[in-house]
Amino acid sequence: MHARSPAGRRDSLRNNAPVTDHFQSLLADKTPFPDDLAGRLREQLTFLVEIDRLKTVMRQSPLASAERRENDAEHSWHLAMMVVILAEYSDEPIDVGHAVELVLVHDLVEIYAGDTPLYDSTAGVDQQEREVIAAEKLFGLLPDDQARRIRALWDEFEERRTPEARFAKAMDRLQPLLLNWMARGGTWQTPGITADDVRSRKAVIGDASTVLWEAGRRFIDEGEARGWSRTNISPG
Amino acid sequence: MHARSPAGRRDSLRNNAPVTDHFQSLLADKTPFPDDLAGRLREQLTFLVEIDRLKTVMRQSPLASAERRENDAEHSWHLAMMVVILAEYSDEPIDVGHAVELVLVHDLVEIYAGDTPLYDSTAGVDQQEREVIAAEKLFGLLPDDQARRIRALWDEFEERRTPEARFAKAMDRLQPLLLNWMARGGTWQTPGITADDVRSRKAVIGDASTVLWEAGRRFIDEGEARGWSRTNISPG
Repeated sequence: MHARSPAGRRDSLRNNAPVTDHFQSLLADKTPFPDDLAGRLREQLTFLVEIDRLKTVMRQSPLASAERRENDAEHSWHLAMMVVILAEYSDEPIDVGHAVELVLVHDLVEIYAGDTPLYDSTAGVDQQEREVIAAEKLFGLLPDDQARRIRALWDEFEERRTPEARFAKAMDRLQPLLLNWMARGGTWQTPGITADDVRSRKAVIGDASTVLWEAGRRFIDEGEARGWSRTNISPG
Repeated sequence: MHARSPAGRRDSLRNNAPVTDHFQSLLADKTPFPDDLAGRLREQLTFLVEIDRLKTVMRQSPLASAERRENDAEHSWHLAMMVVILAEYSDEPIDVGHAVELVLVHDLVEIYAGDTPLYDSTAGVDQQEREVIAAEKLFGLLPDDQARRIRALWDEFEERRTPEARFAKAMDRLQPLLLNWMARGGTWQTPGITADDVRSRKAVIGDASTVLWEAGRRFIDEGEARGWSRTNISPG
């Protein structure tokens, strides 16, 4: 464990062994940095090497450009580009640089907590608990001031109380929608999922942008009309 | 071709068939968007789908977290995180959000022009020409105002005349240096390359940050001492 972590954090990690067992050692421990690398920079580089793991966290979404699924690092970069290009459609003024920072860090906790598929109704049960533990472990590698700052960005994204967080979340929903459209179904075809489920899970796009949610709904409606998602069966 | 491209651009593409032959059709053409999607947003989403290809452009650098090489999208995300965490070491004040935008877009032209390995002395001959053609084709998918803006960001990165561009470039050199360290050699072991070659190609880090170039040199020196790169053979 990282020397700066308070004892409480270490205990909470010990009590949640399943979350952290696979990550007992840090990537940086595989090839320790030169001994004389200064403390603060050493912590920052330890964190920056550790987050290389985001490139190995696989999502459900199929790429548009290759026959494989997307990983979290690729996804985070794609969201950042979407913020830069689509910010003009935010219903409220946003600080683009701040919204970009939110999407860059929004999935980091999945390095230790794993990806929770949007259409998996059971996987989310202990998701929040796992992600908080992961955040403490991962961000705790950084110098304290930066650990607090990255944690604050992640909390802001999760809580969606700022215009930037709402727009970042909208991108997080719109990007896989585009990839599913390109794949003519993709995860819309998850067993048990209907077009209405897709609409309800994507509706948060409308909390940030009327224009983008209108477009998103067009993609979903058209996909349903083409048979790329299941039409809802009324329970009566 | 994109309807907005001026005739001169189309001609320049025709005269450079090897660069563009593999990309005659856009990804968005595989699954055309709904007909009624408005013009400006349609152009923006066409671009955002097309850049999915950055996830398939492979670099030479080995990941620290898996036994495979890195792709450009993962690399761009990693650089953005490095800007956020290491900006304090810039010798000149920088706008972090602006430097982040520079690294997000800096490799986009490689979608059509391909990656040019740092230690490949022949591949760079027509690199600039290929990349300019790629920039015109790719950024030309965007509405004109955004095409100009993204092109300006790419030009700024390439020209390195601003503190943000120098810092972005430094991250572009420091990140693979860290990955090579983690791999105990990596591309430092390219045939014909010596530790002095590595030092000379990484020296631009020092144009942005005295502290980070001092650290970078320590990694290179220590790597050489451990036999992870070739010690220079004096020509006498």
